[in-house]
Amino acid sequence: MTTAGQVIRCKGGLIAAAVAWESGKPLSIEDVEVAPPQKDEVRIKILFTSLCHTDVYFWDAKGQDPLFPRILGHEAGGIVESVGEGVTDLQPGDHVLPIFTGECKECRHCLSEESNMCDLLRINTDRGTMIHDGKSRFSINGKPIYHFLGTSTFSEYTVVHVGQVAKINPSAPLDKVCVLSCGISTGFGATVNVAKPKKGQSVAVFGLGAVGLAAAEGARVSGASRIIGVDLNPNRFEEAKKFGVTEFVNPKDHNKPVQEVIAEMTGGGVDRSVECTGSIQAMISAFECVHDGWGVAVLVGVPNKDDAFKTHPMNLLNERTLKGTFFGNYKPRSDIPAVVEQYMNNELELDKFITHSIPFSEINKAFEYMLRGEGLRCMIRMDA
Amino acid sequence: MTTAGQVIRCKGGLIAAAVAWESGKPLSIEDVEVAPPQKDEVRIKILFTSLCHTDVYFWDAKGQDPLFPRILGHEAGGIVESVGEGVTDLQPGDHVLPIFTGECKECRHCLSEESNMCDLLRINTDRGTMIHDGKSRFSINGKPIYHFLGTSTFSEYTVVHVGQVAKINPSAPLDKVCVLSCGISTGFGATVNVAKPKKGQSVAVFGLGAVGLAAAEGARVSGASRIIGVDLNPNRFEEAKKFGVTEFVNPKDHNKPVQEVIAEMTGGGVDRSVECTGSIQAMISAFECVHDGWGVAVLVGVPNKDDAFKTHPMNLLNERTLKGTFFGNYKPRSDIPAVVEQYMNNELELDKFITHSIPFSEINKAFEYMLRGEGLRCMIRMDA
Repeated sequence: MTTAGQVIRCKGGLIAAAVAWESGKPLSIEDVEVAPPQKDEVRIKILFTSLCHTDVYFWDAKGQDPLFPRILGHEAGGIVESVGEGVTDLQPGDHVLPIFTGECKECRHCLSEESNMCDLLRINTDRGTMIHDGKSRFSINGKPIYHFLGTSTFSEYTVVHVGQVAKINPSAPLDKVCVLSCGISTGFGATVNVAKPKKGQSVAVFGLGAVGLAAAEGARVSGASRIIGVDLNPNRFEEAKKFGVTEFVNPKDHNKPVQEVIAEMTGGGVDRSVECTGSIQAMISAFECVHDGWGVAVLVGVPNKDDAFKTHPMNLLNERTLKGTFFGNYKPRSDIPAVVEQYMNNELELDKFITHSIPFSEINKAFEYMLRGEGLRCMIRMDA
Repeated sequence: MTTAGQVIRCKGGLIAAAVAWESGKPLSIEDVEVAPPQKDEVRIKILFTSLCHTDVYFWDAKGQDPLFPRILGHEAGGIVESVGEGVTDLQPGDHVLPIFTGECKECRHCLSEESNMCDLLRINTDRGTMIHDGKSRFSINGKPIYHFLGTSTFSEYTVVHVGQVAKINPSAPLDKVCVLSCGISTGFGATVNVAKPKKGQSVAVFGLGAVGLAAAEGARVSGASRIIGVDLNPNRFEEAKKFGVTEFVNPKDHNKPVQEVIAEMTGGGVDRSVECTGSIQAMISAFECVHDGWGVAVLVGVPNKDDAFKTHPMNLLNERTLKGTFFGNYKPRSDIPAVVEQYMNNELELDKFITHSIPFSEINKAFEYMLRGEGLRCMIRMDA
């Protein structure tokens, strides 16, 4: 039986989505209708999805204009079920990763070798509908449920713009490469695409959550000689060793700024640093801890609205470089398939990021793990 | 008659130096003794020297620990008269440019491909003596006269550390390539070595003095499609056209920040910017006027001690790059000879920077021109 062109209805609990009805309340597994993909859209059967901080942030919805009811989720792996009008480079059966930010391949950003900040499909956290017609593809008894990041992967089926779908090697295990949809690519790419440490150089990583450890993995893969992990939580160091972190600095253990501590440890500063916390103070420290003459600091963590990055301009004039990155500078459709290949070739390790696995029916446990700071990534099995 | 190994004494006005006896007072041409070069030093007969803002800044000596009497001057061209112990790669007769910052070729910076901030010979504005023995090579009746930047080129003869001497093509006209000792290399290198605009890209240059116009020259040579000059002085635009500046923005003409004006002119921002004023507000504008996704801003101008560079970190996270540079990232000994060749091959134009020419006896006129903001470089002829 083909489902293409049909509304997919949930009958007898066979198809389900986890709906966030209001901020901070447990998700509720509901039977939803998923409309067919429209122009330039793809309907995907999600097999695995994982929870990222960004889901929790928009679920918690503090300091935001809340948008509910909504189907969250943006790290996932699945299989194309059907495609809408105009979709030529994907077909049913393709293995794909939906990505929270897109690549139209036509705008100035997509045509630039350097940018991945597509004008059309750049991340939009406020939009809860599809670009094509401003409507949702999800509904319950005719009442629309909002999308999230254009992905909404906490559902057995979802509809995504074709520009947000990376087609990957069908032999790649979706329950592993799923994490490349967001956090791991963000951290890994920040190091290998932007900080670009040379073999033997030193790298400081601020924040040892999943993104920071992915940045450390990037440093390990690049052949860094020293990887200095910085975190306020000393429990994270043991785990971090698996990701190549060789030294650990807890700013709380010192009565001077952590950038001075790192400068003393390294004879003037590290060669590269990657900031993965979003704390403005950590951003400033990450910049000021790189060596003059050649040091490069890369900002990854998302700051608060009112933050100000502040430093003495001589820190710049002494030939330091400060850069920011978004999704590790990867273009989602053009570049992510090759990152999957890196995993398949054992160049990049992913399994160690997946610390928990639960069936979809227990999805709220993933939120609990993250809120407790327990583990890195919780894999949610849709078929279980 | 050889003078090597002898103290060069001034007899009958044949050899002279312009001495700054106190801050802000006209220089006085004096007969000085110039001691022989010691270990790793070179004595140079200066043929041409030009005046740079840095000379005026340390002559004016506001907000500094003043160091007088002193022989200023650091942009110059000359011929090696004699060399001290251990100097093997220079010999009498070599044509050279003394440089205010050095290259020992042995420290971490000199061994790095990226840095020119030599640990041993990096610019030091406070030191008034030679590194070897902490003494001056200049004296009048036995009383020492301080050096400036290790160059002190306002003298018919000077002694310079070998690490601060670039040996150049002897057929290069010293009265032209002289200006590559400092300002012109600083601006030109900021663009071609650091901002690196691609052919057809847009470049904004903040400050249209000699350094800024050299940055514009770098943009012109790189094939920039638009070169937007920013200056508070509208009189500078006519001159700037000779340096490839295609459009002019005077922040005083607008009631919104200049970065917004530039963003509107360019559909979101320029591809590259180079800041050559040292004003902290201009630095912030120069950063915020580059396009997200790929824009690169390069800081050249030297800020005040208490300045703070301040921006919203999202400006960085949107994939902008902020870098500082010193002496255009050129390594003085390794790289400057090739810049002289660029001039010889007509790739880089220098003659248009030299707007005045005076004999050494009238050196104070050069200060007057600069204080009035008149012209770009005043060439001072030592033999006249």
